[in-house]
Amino acid sequence: MAICFQFQSPLKPINIPPSSTKKAPIFRCKASFSTTITTEPEPVFTSVKSFAPATVANLGPGFDFLGAAVDGLGDFVSVSLDTSVRPGHVSISEISGSSKLSSNPLFNCAGIAAIAAMKMLNIRSFGISLKLEKGLPLGSGLGSSAASAAAAAVAVNELFGAKLGADQLILAGLESEAKVSGYHADNIAPAVMGGFVLIKSYEPLELKPLIFPNNQELFFILVSPEFEAPTKKMRAALPAEIGMPQHVWNCSQAGALVASVLEGDVAGLGKALSSDKIVEPKRAPLIPGMEGVKKAAIETGAFGCTISGAGPTAVAVIDNEDKGKVIGEKMVEAFLKEGNLRSVSMVKRLDRVGARLVDSFPR
Amino acid sequence: MAICFQFQSPLKPINIPPSSTKKAPIFRCKASFSTTITTEPEPVFTSVKSFAPATVANLGPGFDFLGAAVDGLGDFVSVSLDTSVRPGHVSISEISGSSKLSSNPLFNCAGIAAIAAMKMLNIRSFGISLKLEKGLPLGSGLGSSAASAAAAAVAVNELFGAKLGADQLILAGLESEAKVSGYHADNIAPAVMGGFVLIKSYEPLELKPLIFPNNQELFFILVSPEFEAPTKKMRAALPAEIGMPQHVWNCSQAGALVASVLEGDVAGLGKALSSDKIVEPKRAPLIPGMEGVKKAAIETGAFGCTISGAGPTAVAVIDNEDKGKVIGEKMVEAFLKEGNLRSVSMVKRLDRVGARLVDSFPR
Repeated sequence: MAICFQFQSPLKPINIPPSSTKKAPIFRCKASFSTTITTEPEPVFTSVKSFAPATVANLGPGFDFLGAAVDGLGDFVSVSLDTSVRPGHVSISEISGSSKLSSNPLFNCAGIAAIAAMKMLNIRSFGISLKLEKGLPLGSGLGSSAASAAAAAVAVNELFGAKLGADQLILAGLESEAKVSGYHADNIAPAVMGGFVLIKSYEPLELKPLIFPNNQELFFILVSPEFEAPTKKMRAALPAEIGMPQHVWNCSQAGALVASVLEGDVAGLGKALSSDKIVEPKRAPLIPGMEGVKKAAIETGAFGCTISGAGPTAVAVIDNEDKGKVIGEKMVEAFLKEGNLRSVSMVKRLDRVGARLVDSFPR
Repeated sequence: MAICFQFQSPLKPINIPPSSTKKAPIFRCKASFSTTITTEPEPVFTSVKSFAPATVANLGPGFDFLGAAVDGLGDFVSVSLDTSVRPGHVSISEISGSSKLSSNPLFNCAGIAAIAAMKMLNIRSFGISLKLEKGLPLGSGLGSSAASAAAAAVAVNELFGAKLGADQLILAGLESEAKVSGYHADNIAPAVMGGFVLIKSYEPLELKPLIFPNNQELFFILVSPEFEAPTKKMRAALPAEIGMPQHVWNCSQAGALVASVLEGDVAGLGKALSSDKIVEPKRAPLIPGMEGVKKAAIETGAFGCTISGAGPTAVAVIDNEDKGKVIGEKMVEAFLKEGNLRSVSMVKRLDRVGARLVDSFPR
């Protein structure tokens, strides 16, 4: 099991090769959860490379059930048929972009998802080796583990002829998420499907893609400070009980958020995103400068701002890339001034595609 | 102040004359709350008659912020210039369809809303007399007070040339609702605007109409038992605090409900409507037979069922009128069998128009 540490700047923009049109997976199905494959499929390629995007989960009042995919930022996974690997097994041959990840596939997001996809496909005769290229920093609130898992599940699936649907790829990713960050689909679902995805239920897993209109522009301004969000504290900060007025308020804002997504109303989306009275007020004080960053974003013209996932990244929304850059600069300034934290900002479009094949080598 | 009690069967279907196209009020504006009229407008008619529809509020996880208007069921209000009434004042000359309502305009939903509209219009030189025809039973959970208030506000507005927008008509209605049943806009907003309306905020009042697609059919099955819902108990049954899992669940269902409305997905709408884990489980046991009625509705093919407003009416949804009638019969049977209550059922379309002028007599 060879391990190679190739350091990559976190948050470095990535140029993603266009997806192969021959084998474009259909990810836009509604989850219905058919049984796994009973006949072992033949591999279609000797190796493939996939990409899965970063994701912004929670989105203010969408806490724990809503997420969106971010274009041009994410992880790559390559998988190859490898006769030196025990049939039915996965070996991680290389990890680049992070020095903190285990190369034991049982303790690695990509490895766990790859194994889950192998099992779903009923692969018993082939072993594969996996190479993970992290484009996302760990623990930033941008769905790093979900991107690795989604890319791995998609890569394995494509290697064997894309027999699994989006629903099963998400379940494979969920196995990974459950072990790493909790049984939450609000990162893995948009990482696989692209766009906005609403998690309707877990038993059974039911997902509702929310299609943001194609003729509208939506940009996420992502500002990531050099700060490790205290995960336990972030979770502990959540109130166990919520008053009825706050519940009704957040519910109505969640409804307005969903409506704004479907209507392509970026201003409405931002306003709703910014309106959480339950989670953000408890978590923001744990990220130095976050309140000032939000204020700076909105004062500079962002339609709304909140914490991405469990933080520490701040996410704001706007409908214009240039405006987004100006807002991002002000947010970086505010992190430094109010929180004494250095940070980097990016302006990224909504990813409407999700995890995809980016390269393949036929047998 | 003459009072005439003309009894009308509650829930009797109403044939509504088509709205005048000459003076069709524009109710579909987004609330922005301009100032009231400073110059007193001249009356355009000597008398007008308006109609406002029944409304279904709460809609399961839409508790306290979502409502929808129901076609072909509601209240009529006629207003006339009356020189025997003190200028700037309103007199109730007749109430039919209910023996329980006060003819003192200060204690009558229609009266309060009419006075509020008069004030907004700055009417100081004309007195009006008002006739209220109740088509809705009181306390049934179908927005009876809101229908009276909406019809009255619209009638007064039309009499004086329709200077007020939907936002102001809703504020006039809210004055009435606040005195009668609490400061909630989830009945008055759809009663004025028609369709589904999401209440985004109260300060300032911000409303989001949710347009159900014109090419889709949506029927409400409304089953009203002979039972007076214990209003105080219904309110007291609401939990003061809500656990985080229930909050997240209801929020996600509210999001799914909103998406289903906008997408015209009646099955999804029904499922979301049926999914409330916070309010309905507490209130349903206070309405004898309600749980059995919901079960019967869903077993007979309804897409979902919940309590309309604070009850006791049960509301189910379906996409076909004939199926709706069969479901309604089963719900009536269940109310009798499980709750020992007699009830009547109706199958009604979504009202997409809202409160409207139905007759007018030019000066």
